[in-house]
Amino acid sequence: MTDHEPIQPIDGFWSVIPAGGAGTRLWPLSRRASPKFLHDLTGSGRTLLQGTWDRLAPISEGGVLVVTGALHADAVREQLPEVDPQDVVAEPSPRDSMPAIGLAAAIIERRDPDAVIGSFAADHVIDQVDEFHAAVREAAAVARTGRIVTLGITPSEPSTAFGYIHEGAALRVADAPRARAVREFVEKPNATTAAQYIASGGYWWNAGMFVAKASALLDALAAYHPELAATLRAIAADPSRLEEDWDGLTGIAIDHAVAEPAARDGLVAVIPASFTWDDVGDFASLGALLERGGGRSALTVLGDAADVIGVDSTGIVAARGGRVVAVVGLEDVVVVDTPDALLVVSRARAQEVKAVVDRLKAGGRTELT
Amino acid sequence: MTDHEPIQPIDGFWSVIPAGGAGTRLWPLSRRASPKFLHDLTGSGRTLLQGTWDRLAPISEGGVLVVTGALHADAVREQLPEVDPQDVVAEPSPRDSMPAIGLAAAIIERRDPDAVIGSFAADHVIDQVDEFHAAVREAAAVARTGRIVTLGITPSEPSTAFGYIHEGAALRVADAPRARAVREFVEKPNATTAAQYIASGGYWWNAGMFVAKASALLDALAAYHPELAATLRAIAADPSRLEEDWDGLTGIAIDHAVAEPAARDGLVAVIPASFTWDDVGDFASLGALLERGGGRSALTVLGDAADVIGVDSTGIVAARGGRVVAVVGLEDVVVVDTPDALLVVSRARAQEVKAVVDRLKAGGRTELT
Repeated sequence: MTDHEPIQPIDGFWSVIPAGGAGTRLWPLSRRASPKFLHDLTGSGRTLLQGTWDRLAPISEGGVLVVTGALHADAVREQLPEVDPQDVVAEPSPRDSMPAIGLAAAIIERRDPDAVIGSFAADHVIDQVDEFHAAVREAAAVARTGRIVTLGITPSEPSTAFGYIHEGAALRVADAPRARAVREFVEKPNATTAAQYIASGGYWWNAGMFVAKASALLDALAAYHPELAATLRAIAADPSRLEEDWDGLTGIAIDHAVAEPAARDGLVAVIPASFTWDDVGDFASLGALLERGGGRSALTVLGDAADVIGVDSTGIVAARGGRVVAVVGLEDVVVVDTPDALLVVSRARAQEVKAVVDRLKAGGRTELT
Repeated sequence: MTDHEPIQPIDGFWSVIPAGGAGTRLWPLSRRASPKFLHDLTGSGRTLLQGTWDRLAPISEGGVLVVTGALHADAVREQLPEVDPQDVVAEPSPRDSMPAIGLAAAIIERRDPDAVIGSFAADHVIDQVDEFHAAVREAAAVARTGRIVTLGITPSEPSTAFGYIHEGAALRVADAPRARAVREFVEKPNATTAAQYIASGGYWWNAGMFVAKASALLDALAAYHPELAATLRAIAADPSRLEEDWDGLTGIAIDHAVAEPAARDGLVAVIPASFTWDDVGDFASLGALLERGGGRSALTVLGDAADVIGVDSTGIVAARGGRVVAVVGLEDVVVVDTPDALLVVSRARAQEVKAVVDRLKAGGRTELT
């Protein structure tokens, strides 16, 4: 975040931070009991959740709401002392992103019927915060016209790990020069299709960032899933209903519940943005993140570099076990040392860490997962 | 050791176990403070030292003496309750193998002037104990003729890690049908020379196993290093002199001090033996040792296999840190987990572990070395 000019809050703008997901592919750093958003994975001194709040607070004139699992509500409140404990909403059980974001929208709608909300996951890393703020500012301007707006991430490669946003015609909206209609959201493509997207242009990574008037989002939800919208608004009106009504809700992602059908109905816009974004999906992407600027010459260390001795090795070492870690003669290795579990994986196989967690669960070692 | 026939002790035979050496290449399992001979590296339930005693006690009619560093004397006495604490001789400082073995010889010579002693390192692994006993029995028979006798290990490969014994003519000694003269001891050869040794035959690995009359060994030492022999005999006569006289002794290996010159003088014999022998020099050889019978299909575990999760990986895991160790997608990797230090090395580079220890010392982390 730059110091040279003060950041103007966006009038009537509220941020929603859905803080969920175990980040299984980052085991053993990330566990169900302490998922990745609670960790400082970049060595910045702030956890991913705190980094997300740092990014959003300056532009959120209305405020910031966090929706997280009951298991993590206390940890979230501890990490975000600036947030009113009441604004850390605890889901009784996981119901995917639509109920989480929809409940936040319904709560905010009651506080400010004209509120524009932006929803941003708690476990993503974003550089060029100025550009992020500029994109959100444009998205908010478009949202005030009643549209549901998403931010499109400029693809750095033909990734098959993300869904894509296929842009439509340019929109004429004041203060939103980059705004375009969304033709459709497309699922994670195969390599060939992804390459075609990059070659043809007009396709953006879908990072699940949505900006809309709280009322517009809930009205759209009411059109496609009336009961879900009604229940969420009812809970917002009478929080005592949360416990009893929540578990009956359908678990559904905001993309399927609202974004995709609304796009078909021509109600969705995209702001193509150029900030760098990373969802820190596995140790390979964490490594790439840590290496930006650091270079690939040797071992990239997360933790105290004094605890790591690398001899003719490259890769990533997370030294979180409070012990010396020595790596000799290995290329592109990932070593993650924690007090109760140790992972050694080749960088190319980082995605398969999930298999270890499955084995631990199958073996009844759930305390480690 | 077989149960089917009782093992006959060898009359007047004493065993000497030099227990020294840090086993740096087995770091972090082996440390200066707890060298490899104090560890159960094979999962047998007995440490290498205890395994050595188990092998020697049944044939040592005279007894077993252990010579070790002052730092380890108590640990050795704890591991060998069967040995009279006085028979665990503590060296005030390391002076290589000749002073250690020579002092033991001088002590034994005073107890039994006709004693035949055999010296066998504390940190070697030997299978086929029957064959080992048979070879020592033949060596003792030859030793009684006044010769210094060594056991020749049948090379399993043209190793460049060991010195070789070049055999001479067959000897005619009762009860020692395999005895041959030793033409010379040759230093660790290069690969080409080693291959020639194997091709030509008549070359045996030198495992530093010596059998001789205590008096013959000391008399030979007196011929080549008079002062050293005299000092050792004087210390044996008056143990109170150990502290003051020891530090002045020249550090020298028994090979250079006695075996090589005595071979030149035609005083050394060899018993070519066929038992399998391993000096557990590094994690690669430890792995090979553990895999005998186990096969190479997956991870070989030293420790509790329940703590190790291997996914599509091969190599060796020493799980001694009391935590789960997961290895994913790595071939021929060595993972050694201990409470205060973790090592990850490719099997092919196992020899380079020493570099880590050097780095730790240079960094002032000697408590870990």
